[in-house]
Amino acid sequence: MTPWNQATIIGVGLIGGSLGMALKQRGLARHVVGVGHRQVSLDQALARGAADRVTLEPEAGVRGSDLVVLATAIGCFEPILRQIAPALARGTVVIDVGSTKARAVARLEPLVPEGCALVGCHPIAGSEQRGVGHARADLFEGAQCVVTPTARTPPEAVRRVVATWEAVGMTVRTLTPEAHDRLLAAVSHLPHVTAAALVGVIGDEAETLAGPGWADTTRIASGDPALWRDILLSNAGELDDALGRLEAALARWRDVLRRGDAAAVQAMLASSKTRRDRLTERKEGR
Amino acid sequence: MTPWNQATIIGVGLIGGSLGMALKQRGLARHVVGVGHRQVSLDQALARGAADRVTLEPEAGVRGSDLVVLATAIGCFEPILRQIAPALARGTVVIDVGSTKARAVARLEPLVPEGCALVGCHPIAGSEQRGVGHARADLFEGAQCVVTPTARTPPEAVRRVVATWEAVGMTVRTLTPEAHDRLLAAVSHLPHVTAAALVGVIGDEAETLAGPGWADTTRIASGDPALWRDILLSNAGELDDALGRLEAALARWRDVLRRGDAAAVQAMLASSKTRRDRLTERKEGR
Repeated sequence: MTPWNQATIIGVGLIGGSLGMALKQRGLARHVVGVGHRQVSLDQALARGAADRVTLEPEAGVRGSDLVVLATAIGCFEPILRQIAPALARGTVVIDVGSTKARAVARLEPLVPEGCALVGCHPIAGSEQRGVGHARADLFEGAQCVVTPTARTPPEAVRRVVATWEAVGMTVRTLTPEAHDRLLAAVSHLPHVTAAALVGVIGDEAETLAGPGWADTTRIASGDPALWRDILLSNAGELDDALGRLEAALARWRDVLRRGDAAAVQAMLASSKTRRDRLTERKEGR
Repeated sequence: MTPWNQATIIGVGLIGGSLGMALKQRGLARHVVGVGHRQVSLDQALARGAADRVTLEPEAGVRGSDLVVLATAIGCFEPILRQIAPALARGTVVIDVGSTKARAVARLEPLVPEGCALVGCHPIAGSEQRGVGHARADLFEGAQCVVTPTARTPPEAVRRVVATWEAVGMTVRTLTPEAHDRLLAAVSHLPHVTAAALVGVIGDEAETLAGPGWADTTRIASGDPALWRDILLSNAGELDDALGRLEAALARWRDVLRRGDAAAVQAMLASSKTRRDRLTERKEGR
Protein backbone atom coordinates (compact mmCIF):
# COMPACT_ATOMS: atom_id res chain seq x y z
CA MET A 1 0.00 0.00 0.00
CA THR A 2 1.01 3.65 -0.43
CA PRO A 3 2.24 4.81 2.97
CA TRP A 4 0.47 7.59 4.83
CA ASN A 5 2.45 10.77 4.89
CA GLN A 6 1.81 11.46 8.57
CA ALA A 7 -0.32 9.53 11.05
CA THR A 8 -1.47 11.16 14.29
CA ILE A 9 -2.47 8.84 17.08
CA ILE A 10 -4.57 10.45 19.77
CA GLY A 11 -4.34 8.30 22.89
CA VAL A 12 -1.06 6.40 22.84
CA GLY A 13 -2.05 3.50 25.10
CA LEU A 14 -1.98 -0.23 24.43
CA ILE A 15 -3.83 -0.05 21.09
CA GLY A 16 -2.67 3.39 19.96
CA GLY A 17 0.91 2.74 20.99
CA SER A 18 1.00 -0.66 19.31
CA LEU A 19 -0.41 0.84 16.12
CA GLY A 20 2.22 3.59 16.19
CA MET A 21 4.98 0.98 16.52
CA ALA A 22 3.53 -1.16 13.74
CA LEU A 23 3.10 1.81 11.35
CA LYS A 24 6.68 2.93 11.96
CA GLN A 25 8.33 -0.49 11.85
CA ARG A 26 6.53 -1.50 8.67
CA GLY A 27 6.98 1.83 6.92
CA LEU A 28 3.23 2.38 6.66
CA ALA A 29 3.49 6.06 7.65
CA ARG A 30 6.43 8.41 6.99
CA HIS A 31 5.88 10.18 10.33
CA VAL A 32 3.92 9.22 13.42
CA VAL A 33 2.76 11.87 15.90
CA GLY A 34 1.54 10.87 19.35
CA VAL A 35 -1.02 12.96 21.23
CA GLY A 36 -1.92 12.46 24.87
CA HIS A 37 -2.91 14.33 27.99
CA ARG A 38 -0.09 13.19 30.25
CA GLN A 39 3.51 14.05 29.39
CA VAL A 40 4.81 10.95 31.18
CA SER A 41 2.85 8.66 28.84
CA LEU A 42 4.02 10.63 25.82
CA ASP A 43 7.64 10.35 26.93
CA GLN A 44 7.17 6.62 27.30
CA ALA A 45 5.57 6.44 23.83
CA LEU A 46 8.60 8.18 22.36
CA ALA A 47 11.02 5.97 24.27
CA ARG A 48 9.24 2.81 23.14
CA GLY A 49 9.22 3.88 19.49
CA ALA A 50 5.46 4.38 19.24
CA ALA A 51 5.83 7.87 17.77
CA ASP A 52 8.45 10.13 16.15
CA ARG A 53 7.24 13.17 18.04
CA VAL A 54 4.61 13.85 20.67
CA THR A 55 2.45 16.72 21.84
CA LEU A 56 -0.16 17.53 24.45
CA GLU A 57 -2.06 19.67 21.91
CA PRO A 58 -4.49 17.75 19.66
CA GLU A 59 -4.84 20.57 17.08
CA ALA A 60 -1.08 20.90 16.71
CA GLY A 61 -0.78 17.13 16.54
CA VAL A 62 -3.12 16.63 13.59
CA ARG A 63 -1.74 19.49 11.46
CA GLY A 64 -0.32 18.07 8.24
CA SER A 65 -1.58 14.53 8.89
CA ASP A 66 -3.50 12.50 6.32
CA LEU A 67 -4.43 9.84 8.93
CA VAL A 68 -5.81 10.58 12.39
CA VAL A 69 -6.48 7.73 14.79
CA LEU A 70 -8.84 8.22 17.75
CA ALA A 71 -7.53 5.73 20.31
CA THR A 72 -8.63 7.25 23.62
CA ALA A 73 -11.51 5.98 25.77
CA ILE A 74 -14.76 5.95 23.74
CA GLY A 75 -16.25 8.82 25.72
CA CYS A 76 -13.51 11.22 24.55
CA PHE A 77 -13.90 10.65 20.79
CA GLU A 78 -16.61 13.27 20.30
CA PRO A 79 -15.05 16.20 22.23
CA ILE A 80 -11.65 15.50 20.68
CA LEU A 81 -13.04 15.38 17.14
CA ARG A 82 -14.90 18.68 17.75
CA GLN A 83 -11.62 20.16 18.90
CA ILE A 84 -9.45 18.96 16.00
CA ALA A 85 -11.99 19.26 13.16
CA PRO A 86 -10.99 22.83 12.19
CA ALA A 87 -7.33 21.74 11.97
CA LEU A 88 -7.90 18.77 9.66
CA ALA A 89 -6.50 19.09 6.13
CA ARG A 90 -8.76 18.29 3.20
CA GLY A 91 -8.56 14.58 2.39
CA THR A 92 -7.64 13.48 5.91
CA VAL A 93 -8.96 10.07 6.97
CA VAL A 94 -10.10 9.86 10.60
CA ILE A 95 -10.52 6.44 12.18
CA ASP A 96 -11.66 5.50 15.65
CA VAL A 97 -10.69 2.20 17.25
CA GLY A 98 -13.54 1.97 19.77
CA SER A 99 -15.01 -1.36 20.86
CA THR A 100 -18.58 -0.32 19.99
CA LYS A 101 -19.49 1.32 16.74
CA ALA A 102 -23.12 2.35 16.14
CA ARG A 103 -23.25 5.24 18.56
CA ALA A 104 -19.67 6.40 17.89
CA VAL A 105 -20.01 6.37 14.11
CA ALA A 106 -23.38 8.13 14.22
CA ARG A 107 -21.99 10.89 16.42
CA LEU A 108 -18.57 11.28 14.81
CA GLU A 109 -19.51 11.16 11.13
CA PRO A 110 -21.32 14.53 11.08
CA LEU A 111 -18.36 16.19 12.84
CA VAL A 112 -15.82 15.35 10.12
CA PRO A 113 -15.32 18.33 7.79
CA GLU A 114 -16.29 18.29 4.11
CA GLY A 115 -13.58 16.51 2.09
CA CYS A 116 -12.44 14.35 5.03
CA ALA A 117 -13.64 10.84 5.86
CA LEU A 118 -14.52 8.90 8.99
CA VAL A 119 -13.97 5.14 8.97
CA GLY A 120 -15.11 3.28 12.09
CA CYS A 121 -12.75 0.46 13.06
CA HIS A 122 -12.52 -2.13 15.79
CA PRO A 123 -9.23 -4.00 15.93
CA ILE A 124 -10.11 -6.98 18.16
CA ALA A 125 -6.78 -7.18 19.92
CA GLY A 126 -5.42 -6.33 23.32
CA SER A 127 -6.03 -7.79 26.72
CA GLU A 128 -6.83 -6.71 30.27
CA GLN A 129 -3.45 -4.94 30.24
CA ARG A 130 -3.33 -1.21 29.60
CA GLY A 131 -0.91 1.50 28.60
CA VAL A 132 1.91 2.01 26.15
CA GLY A 133 4.15 -0.01 28.48
CA HIS A 134 2.45 -3.16 27.17
CA ALA A 135 2.30 -1.98 23.55
CA ARG A 136 4.01 -4.08 20.91
CA ALA A 137 4.23 -3.87 17.13
CA ASP A 138 2.89 -7.40 16.65
CA LEU A 139 -0.23 -6.92 18.83
CA PHE A 140 -2.49 -7.07 15.77
CA GLU A 141 -0.77 -10.02 14.09
CA GLY A 142 -3.26 -12.79 13.30
CA ALA A 143 -6.23 -11.04 14.94
CA GLN A 144 -9.39 -9.68 13.36
CA CYS A 145 -10.41 -6.11 12.65
CA VAL A 146 -13.95 -5.01 11.88
CA VAL A 147 -14.33 -1.94 9.67
CA THR A 148 -17.78 -0.30 9.70
CA PRO A 149 -18.32 2.06 6.76
CA THR A 150 -21.70 3.70 6.20
CA ALA A 151 -23.39 4.89 3.02
CA ARG A 152 -21.55 8.18 3.48
CA THR A 153 -18.02 6.75 3.78
CA PRO A 154 -15.85 7.34 0.67
CA PRO A 155 -14.86 3.90 -0.72
CA GLU A 156 -11.30 5.05 -1.34
CA ALA A 157 -10.86 5.88 2.36
CA VAL A 158 -12.25 2.46 3.33
CA ARG A 159 -9.84 0.79 0.92
CA ARG A 160 -6.80 2.53 2.38
CA VAL A 161 -7.87 1.83 5.96
CA VAL A 162 -8.49 -1.84 5.22
CA ALA A 163 -5.08 -2.08 3.56
CA THR A 164 -3.47 -0.50 6.63
CA TRP A 165 -5.00 -3.01 9.06
CA GLU A 166 -4.03 -5.85 6.75
CA ALA A 167 -0.49 -4.49 6.59
CA VAL A 168 -0.19 -4.71 10.40
CA GLY A 169 -1.24 -8.35 10.24
CA MET A 170 -5.01 -8.31 10.71
CA THR A 171 -7.82 -10.08 8.92
CA VAL A 172 -10.39 -7.42 8.09
CA ARG A 173 -14.17 -7.82 8.00
CA THR A 174 -16.62 -5.19 6.88
CA LEU A 175 -19.89 -4.90 8.80
CA THR A 176 -22.45 -2.18 9.40
CA PRO A 177 -21.92 -0.44 12.75
CA GLU A 178 -25.18 -2.02 13.97
CA ALA A 179 -24.22 -5.56 12.94
CA HIS A 180 -20.84 -5.10 14.60
CA ASP A 181 -22.45 -4.11 17.88
CA ARG A 182 -24.91 -6.99 17.79
CA LEU A 183 -22.14 -9.55 17.22
CA LEU A 184 -19.75 -8.00 19.72
CA ALA A 185 -22.49 -8.00 22.34
CA ALA A 186 -22.56 -11.80 22.05
CA VAL A 187 -18.85 -12.39 21.79
CA SER A 188 -17.40 -9.77 24.12
CA HIS A 189 -19.81 -7.63 26.15
CA LEU A 190 -22.04 -10.48 27.34
CA PRO A 191 -19.05 -12.58 28.48
CA HIS A 192 -17.67 -9.54 30.28
CA VAL A 193 -20.86 -8.95 32.25
CA THR A 194 -21.19 -12.67 32.90
CA ALA A 195 -17.64 -12.93 34.22
CA ALA A 196 -18.27 -9.93 36.49
CA ALA A 197 -21.53 -11.48 37.72
CA LEU A 198 -19.84 -14.86 38.38
CA VAL A 199 -17.18 -13.14 40.45
CA GLY A 200 -19.90 -11.26 42.29
CA VAL A 201 -21.74 -14.38 43.45
CA ILE A 202 -18.82 -16.60 44.49
CA GLY A 203 -18.64 -15.65 48.17
CA ASP A 204 -15.57 -15.47 50.39
CA GLU A 205 -15.41 -19.10 51.43
CA ALA A 206 -15.81 -20.58 47.94
CA GLU A 207 -13.25 -18.12 46.59
CA THR A 208 -10.53 -19.92 48.51
CA LEU A 209 -11.26 -23.07 46.49
CA ALA A 210 -11.14 -21.36 43.09
CA GLY A 211 -9.10 -23.37 40.61
CA PRO A 212 -8.00 -22.99 37.00
CA GLY A 213 -11.55 -23.33 35.60
CA TRP A 214 -12.86 -20.41 37.63
CA ALA A 215 -9.72 -18.43 36.83
CA ASP A 216 -10.23 -18.85 33.07
CA THR A 217 -13.96 -18.18 33.16
CA THR A 218 -13.59 -14.94 35.11
CA ARG A 219 -10.27 -13.61 33.76
CA ILE A 220 -11.83 -10.73 31.78
CA ALA A 221 -13.46 -9.41 34.96
CA SER A 222 -10.00 -7.95 35.69
CA GLY A 223 -10.47 -5.45 32.86
CA ASP A 224 -10.40 -1.73 33.55
CA PRO A 225 -13.75 -0.68 35.11
CA ALA A 226 -13.93 2.81 33.53
CA LEU A 227 -13.07 1.51 30.07
CA TRP A 228 -15.62 -1.29 30.27
CA ARG A 229 -18.29 0.95 31.81
CA ASP A 230 -18.11 3.05 28.62
CA ILE A 231 -18.10 0.01 26.32
CA LEU A 232 -21.08 -1.64 28.02
CA LEU A 233 -23.16 1.54 28.25
CA SER A 234 -22.47 2.47 24.65
CA ASN A 235 -23.92 -0.85 23.54
CA ALA A 236 -26.59 -1.24 26.21
CA GLY A 237 -29.41 -2.15 23.81
CA GLU A 238 -27.69 -5.05 22.07
CA LEU A 239 -26.21 -6.16 25.37
CA ASP A 240 -29.67 -6.24 26.92
CA ASP A 241 -30.86 -8.54 24.12
CA ALA A 242 -27.84 -10.78 24.61
CA LEU A 243 -28.45 -10.89 28.37
CA GLY A 244 -32.02 -11.90 27.63
CA ARG A 245 -30.82 -14.82 25.50
CA LEU A 246 -28.40 -15.90 28.24
CA GLU A 247 -31.13 -15.70 30.88
CA ALA A 248 -33.34 -17.90 28.71
CA ALA A 249 -30.49 -20.38 28.26
CA LEU A 250 -29.81 -20.48 32.01
CA ALA A 251 -33.52 -21.00 32.69
CA ARG A 252 -33.43 -23.99 30.32
CA TRP A 253 -30.42 -25.32 32.24
CA ARG A 254 -32.23 -24.95 35.58
CA ASP A 255 -35.20 -26.76 34.15
CA VAL A 256 -33.32 -29.84 32.88
CA LEU A 257 -31.22 -30.01 36.05
CA ARG A 258 -34.31 -29.85 38.28
CA ARG A 259 -35.96 -32.57 36.26
CA GLY A 260 -32.76 -34.64 36.42
CA ASP A 261 -32.98 -35.04 32.65
CA ALA A 262 -29.61 -36.71 32.06
CA ALA A 263 -30.08 -37.06 28.31
CA ALA A 264 -30.86 -33.34 27.90
CA VAL A 265 -27.96 -32.30 30.14
CA GLN A 266 -25.54 -34.42 28.15
CA ALA A 267 -26.94 -33.19 24.81
CA MET A 268 -26.59 -29.54 25.88
CA LEU A 269 -23.04 -30.11 27.14
CA ALA A 270 -22.12 -31.99 23.96
CA SER A 271 -23.53 -29.28 21.72
CA SER A 272 -21.57 -26.57 23.56
CA LYS A 273 -18.42 -28.69 23.47
CA THR A 274 -18.71 -29.13 19.71
CA ARG A 275 -18.99 -25.40 19.15
CA ARG A 276 -16.25 -24.54 21.63
CA ASP A 277 -13.86 -27.13 20.21
CA ARG A 278 -14.37 -25.61 16.77
CA LEU A 279 -12.82 -22.39 18.04
CA THR A 280 -9.85 -24.24 19.55
CA GLU A 281 -9.30 -25.93 16.21
CA ARG A 282 -9.43 -22.60 14.37
CA LYS A 283 -7.00 -21.12 16.83
CA GLU A 284 -6.87 -20.88 20.59
CA GLY A 285 -7.87 -17.20 20.76
CA ARG A 286 -4.79 -15.03 20.80
CA MET B 1 4.25 -40.72 56.46
CA THR B 2 4.23 -44.52 56.69
CA PRO B 3 3.83 -45.80 53.14
CA TRP B 4 0.80 -47.84 52.15
CA ASN B 5 1.65 -51.46 51.56
CA GLN B 6 -0.39 -51.71 48.38
CA ALA B 7 -2.60 -49.12 46.70
CA THR B 8 -5.21 -50.16 44.15
CA ILE B 9 -6.40 -47.49 41.78
CA ILE B 10 -9.69 -48.27 40.07
CA GLY B 11 -9.94 -46.10 36.97
CA VAL B 12 -6.45 -45.22 35.78
CA GLY B 13 -7.30 -42.02 33.88
CA LEU B 14 -5.93 -38.51 34.30
CA ILE B 15 -6.46 -38.36 38.09
CA GLY B 16 -6.03 -42.05 38.89
CA GLY B 17 -2.99 -42.38 36.65
CA SER B 18 -1.37 -39.25 38.03
CA LEU B 19 -1.96 -40.47 41.59
CA GLY B 20 -0.41 -43.85 40.73
CA MET B 21 2.69 -42.13 39.34
CA ALA B 22 2.97 -39.83 42.34
CA LEU B 23 2.55 -42.69 44.86
CA LYS B 24 5.23 -44.73 43.11
CA GLN B 25 7.72 -41.95 42.47
CA ARG B 26 7.51 -40.65 46.03
CA GLY B 27 7.55 -44.07 47.67
CA LEU B 28 4.13 -43.54 49.24
CA ALA B 29 2.97 -47.08 48.39
CA ARG B 30 5.14 -50.20 48.10
CA HIS B 31 3.00 -51.54 45.24
CA VAL B 32 0.46 -49.88 42.99
CA VAL B 33 -2.19 -51.95 41.20
CA GLY B 34 -4.19 -50.44 38.35
CA VAL B 35 -7.74 -51.61 37.58
CA GLY B 36 -9.64 -50.66 34.46
CA HIS B 37 -12.14 -51.99 31.97
CA ARG B 38 -10.06 -51.57 28.81
CA GLN B 39 -6.81 -53.47 28.41
CA VAL B 40 -5.37 -50.78 26.15
CA SER B 41 -5.65 -48.14 28.90
CA LEU B 42 -4.14 -50.53 31.42
CA ASP B 43 -1.21 -51.23 29.10
CA GLN B 44 -0.69 -47.52 28.74
CA ALA B 45 -0.86 -47.07 32.54
CA LEU B 46 1.85 -49.71 32.95
CA ALA B 47 3.98 -48.17 30.21
CA ARG B 48 3.69 -44.70 31.74
CA GLY B 49 4.62 -45.93 35.23
CA ALA B 50 1.21 -45.32 36.78
CA ALA B 51 1.05 -48.89 38.21
CA ASP B 52 3.30 -51.89 38.91
CA ARG B 53 0.69 -54.33 37.72
CA VAL B 54 -2.76 -54.09 36.17
CA THR B 55 -5.92 -56.16 35.99
CA LEU B 56 -9.38 -56.02 34.47
CA GLU B 57 -10.82 -57.68 37.61
CA PRO B 58 -11.65 -55.29 40.47
CA GLU B 59 -11.89 -58.05 43.12
CA ALA B 60 -8.49 -59.44 42.17
CA GLY B 61 -7.09 -55.93 42.06
CA VAL B 62 -8.00 -54.99 45.62
CA ARG B 63 -6.86 -58.20 47.26
CA GLY B 64 -4.07 -57.45 49.73
CA SER B 65 -4.40 -53.66 49.39
CA ASP B 66 -4.66 -51.32 52.37
CA LEU B 67 -5.61 -48.36 50.13
CA VAL B 68 -8.27 -48.48 47.41
CA VAL B 69 -8.88 -45.40 45.26
CA LEU B 70 -12.15 -45.03 43.35
CA ALA B 71 -11.16 -42.86 40.37
CA THR B 72 -13.73 -43.80 37.74
CA ALA B 73 -16.69 -41.66 36.67
CA ILE B 74 -18.87 -40.83 39.71
CA GLY B 75 -21.72 -43.04 38.51
CA CYS B 76 -19.54 -46.18 38.75
CA PHE B 77 -18.43 -45.75 42.37
CA GLU B 78 -21.43 -47.51 43.90
CA PRO B 79 -21.54 -50.63 41.69
CA ILE B 80 -17.77 -51.03 41.92
CA LEU B 81 -17.76 -50.73 45.71
CA ARG B 82 -20.56 -53.33 45.94
CA GLN B 83 -18.46 -55.61 43.78
CA ILE B 84 -15.17 -55.24 45.68
CA ALA B 85 -16.54 -54.97 49.24
CA PRO B 86 -16.33 -58.73 49.96
CA ALA B 87 -12.69 -58.76 48.82
CA LEU B 88 -11.53 -55.88 51.07
CA ALA B 89 -9.15 -56.79 53.88
CA ARG B 90 -9.92 -55.56 57.39
CA GLY B 91 -8.40 -52.09 57.89
CA THR B 92 -8.49 -51.10 54.23
CA VAL B 93 -9.05 -47.42 53.56
CA VAL B 94 -11.27 -46.67 50.56
CA ILE B 95 -11.22 -43.18 49.06
CA ASP B 96 -13.16 -41.76 46.17
CA VAL B 97 -11.91 -38.77 44.18
CA GLY B 98 -15.26 -37.59 42.83
CA SER B 99 -16.00 -33.92 42.16
CA THR B 100 -19.18 -33.95 44.25
CA LYS B 101 -19.33 -35.45 47.70
CA ALA B 102 -22.66 -35.44 49.57
CA ARG B 103 -24.45 -38.05 47.49
CA ALA B 104 -21.34 -40.20 46.90
CA VAL B 105 -20.33 -40.31 50.55
CA ALA B 106 -23.89 -41.03 51.73
CA ARG B 107 -24.19 -43.93 49.30
CA LEU B 108 -20.70 -45.36 49.63
CA GLU B 109 -20.24 -45.19 53.39
CA PRO B 110 -22.80 -47.92 54.23
CA LEU B 111 -21.23 -50.24 51.64
CA VAL B 112 -17.79 -50.30 53.25
CA PRO B 113 -17.37 -53.46 55.39
CA GLU B 114 -16.95 -53.36 59.17
CA GLY B 115 -13.33 -52.54 60.03
CA CYS B 116 -12.72 -50.63 56.79
CA ALA B 117 -13.07 -46.87 56.26
CA LEU B 118 -14.38 -44.60 53.55
CA VAL B 119 -12.81 -41.14 53.20
CA GLY B 120 -14.38 -38.85 50.60
CA CYS B 121 -11.80 -36.77 48.74
CA HIS B 122 -11.79 -34.19 45.98
CA PRO B 123 -8.37 -33.35 44.62
CA ILE B 124 -9.07 -30.10 42.71
CA ALA B 125 -6.66 -30.76 39.89
CA GLY B 126 -6.85 -31.76 36.27
CA SER B 127 -8.15 -30.01 33.21
CA GLU B 128 -10.41 -30.60 30.23
CA GLN B 129 -7.90 -33.29 29.16
CA ARG B 130 -8.65 -36.92 29.91
CA GLY B 131 -6.90 -40.26 30.12
CA VAL B 132 -3.68 -41.68 31.44
CA GLY B 133 -1.92 -40.26 28.38
CA HIS B 134 -2.07 -36.84 30.04
CA ALA B 135 -1.29 -38.11 33.55
CA ARG B 136 1.75 -36.75 35.35
CA ALA B 137 3.20 -37.23 38.81
CA ASP B 138 3.16 -33.49 39.55
CA LEU B 139 -0.50 -32.94 38.63
CA PHE B 140 -1.42 -32.32 42.28
CA GLU B 141 1.55 -30.09 43.11
CA GLY B 142 0.39 -26.78 44.59
CA ALA B 143 -3.31 -27.53 44.16
CA GLN B 144 -5.99 -27.99 46.83
CA CYS B 145 -7.68 -31.16 48.00
CA VAL B 146 -10.88 -31.26 50.01
CA VAL B 147 -11.34 -34.22 52.35
CA THR B 148 -14.89 -34.80 53.61
CA PRO B 149 -15.05 -37.08 56.65
CA THR B 150 -18.33 -37.73 58.43
CA ALA B 151 -19.09 -38.57 62.06
CA ARG B 152 -18.54 -42.22 61.12
CA THR B 153 -15.09 -41.83 59.54
CA PRO B 154 -12.25 -43.21 61.72
CA PRO B 155 -9.89 -40.28 62.53
CA GLU B 156 -6.83 -42.45 61.91
CA ALA B 157 -7.98 -43.13 58.32
CA VAL B 158 -8.55 -39.40 57.76
CA ARG B 159 -5.07 -38.65 59.09
CA ARG B 160 -3.37 -41.10 56.73
CA VAL B 161 -5.38 -39.90 53.72
CA VAL B 162 -4.61 -36.25 54.47
CA ALA B 163 -0.92 -37.10 54.83
CA THR B 164 -1.02 -38.88 51.46
CA TRP B 165 -2.50 -35.90 49.61
CA GLU B 166 -0.01 -33.60 51.31
CA ALA B 167 2.80 -35.92 50.28
CA VAL B 168 1.82 -35.58 46.61
CA GLY B 169 1.97 -31.80 46.97
CA MET B 170 -1.56 -30.74 47.84
CA THR B 171 -2.93 -28.34 50.42
CA VAL B 172 -5.70 -30.20 52.22
CA ARG B 173 -8.92 -28.73 53.61
CA THR B 174 -11.49 -30.63 55.61
CA LEU B 175 -15.15 -29.86 54.98
CA THR B 176 -18.43 -31.70 55.44
CA PRO B 177 -19.62 -33.31 52.19
CA GLU B 178 -22.50 -30.80 52.10
CA ALA B 179 -20.26 -27.74 52.58
CA HIS B 180 -17.96 -29.05 49.87
CA ASP B 181 -20.82 -29.34 47.40
CA ARG B 182 -22.15 -25.89 48.20
CA LEU B 183 -18.75 -24.25 47.65
CA LEU B 184 -17.93 -26.28 44.55
CA ALA B 185 -21.28 -25.34 43.05
CA ALA B 186 -20.17 -21.69 43.17
CA VAL B 187 -16.60 -22.20 42.09
CA SER B 188 -16.87 -24.98 39.53
CA HIS B 189 -20.33 -26.22 38.57
CA LEU B 190 -21.91 -22.79 38.09
CA PRO B 191 -19.04 -21.56 35.87
CA HIS B 192 -19.31 -24.78 33.86
CA VAL B 193 -23.01 -24.34 33.15
CA THR B 194 -22.47 -20.63 32.48
CA ALA B 195 -19.69 -21.33 29.98
CA ALA B 196 -21.89 -23.90 28.23
CA ALA B 197 -24.78 -21.43 28.14
CA LEU B 198 -22.55 -18.63 26.76
CA VAL B 199 -21.39 -20.94 23.99
CA GLY B 200 -24.99 -21.87 23.31
CA VAL B 201 -26.16 -18.30 22.70
CA ILE B 202 -23.28 -16.97 20.60
CA GLY B 203 -24.67 -17.75 17.14
CA ASP B 204 -22.75 -18.70 14.01
CA GLU B 205 -21.93 -15.22 12.79
CA ALA B 206 -20.66 -13.87 16.10
CA GLU B 207 -18.60 -17.03 16.61
CA THR B 208 -16.33 -15.99 13.77
CA LEU B 209 -15.38 -12.86 15.76
CA ALA B 210 -14.57 -14.70 18.98
CA GLY B 211 -11.32 -13.47 20.47
CA PRO B 212 -9.19 -14.32 23.50
CA GLY B 213 -11.78 -13.06 26.02
CA TRP B 214 -14.48 -15.37 24.73
CA ALA B 215 -11.95 -18.20 24.49
CA ASP B 216 -10.99 -17.85 28.17
CA THR B 217 -14.54 -17.42 29.43
CA THR B 218 -15.81 -20.53 27.65
CA ARG B 219 -12.75 -22.81 27.84
CA ILE B 220 -14.27 -25.23 30.37
CA ALA B 221 -17.22 -25.86 28.02
CA SER B 222 -14.79 -28.19 26.21
CA GLY B 223 -14.92 -30.61 29.15
CA ASP B 224 -16.17 -34.15 28.66
CA PRO B 225 -20.01 -34.10 28.43
CA ALA B 226 -20.63 -37.47 30.14
CA LEU B 227 -18.28 -36.69 33.01
CA TRP B 228 -19.84 -33.26 33.56
CA ARG B 229 -23.39 -34.55 33.18
CA ASP B 230 -22.73 -36.78 36.20
CA ILE B 231 -21.05 -34.01 38.18
CA LEU B 232 -23.82 -31.49 37.55
CA LEU B 233 -26.67 -33.91 38.21
CA SER B 234 -25.08 -35.22 41.40
CA ASN B 235 -25.05 -31.67 42.78
CA ALA B 236 -28.24 -30.39 41.19
CA GLY B 237 -29.67 -28.86 44.37
CA GLU B 238 -26.69 -26.68 45.26
CA LEU B 239 -26.20 -25.84 41.60
CA ASP B 240 -29.79 -24.69 41.35
CA ASP B 241 -29.23 -22.32 44.27
CA ALA B 242 -26.07 -20.98 42.64
CA LEU B 243 -27.88 -20.51 39.33
CA GLY B 244 -30.54 -18.56 41.21
CA ARG B 245 -27.88 -16.25 42.63
CA LEU B 246 -26.37 -15.74 39.18
CA GLU B 247 -29.78 -14.99 37.66
CA ALA B 248 -30.37 -12.37 40.35
CA ALA B 249 -26.95 -10.83 39.65
CA LEU B 250 -27.62 -10.74 35.89
CA ALA B 251 -31.02 -9.15 36.52
CA ARG B 252 -29.27 -6.46 38.55
CA TRP B 253 -26.87 -5.92 35.62
CA ARG B 254 -29.75 -5.58 33.15
CA ASP B 255 -31.38 -3.08 35.42
CA VAL B 256 -28.39 -0.75 35.80
CA LEU B 257 -27.57 -1.00 32.08
CA ARG B 258 -31.15 -0.16 31.09
CA ARG B 259 -31.15 2.81 33.41
CA GLY B 260 -27.76 3.88 32.02
CA ASP B 261 -26.52 4.13 35.61
CA ALA B 262 -22.83 4.74 34.88
CA ALA B 263 -21.84 5.00 38.55
CA ALA B 264 -23.47 1.66 39.41
CA VAL B 265 -21.95 -0.05 36.35
CA GLN B 266 -18.50 1.16 37.27
CA ALA B 267 -18.94 0.23 40.95
CA MET B 268 -20.05 -3.31 40.03
CA LEU B 269 -17.14 -3.72 37.60
CA ALA B 270 -14.68 -2.35 40.14
CA SER B 271 -15.95 -4.66 42.87
CA SER B 272 -15.61 -7.71 40.62
CA LYS B 273 -12.15 -6.61 39.48
CA THR B 274 -10.99 -6.28 43.09
CA ARG B 275 -12.10 -9.80 43.92
CA ARG B 276 -10.77 -11.29 40.69
CA ASP B 277 -7.40 -9.56 41.05
CA ARG B 278 -7.09 -11.05 44.54
CA LEU B 279 -7.06 -14.52 42.96
CA THR B 280 -4.42 -13.49 40.43
CA GLU B 281 -2.29 -12.22 43.27
CA ARG B 282 -2.71 -15.46 45.22
CA LYS B 283 -1.78 -17.44 42.14
CA GLU B 284 -3.05 -17.45 38.60
CA GLY B 285 -5.09 -20.67 38.97
CA ARG B 286 -2.82 -23.61 38.16
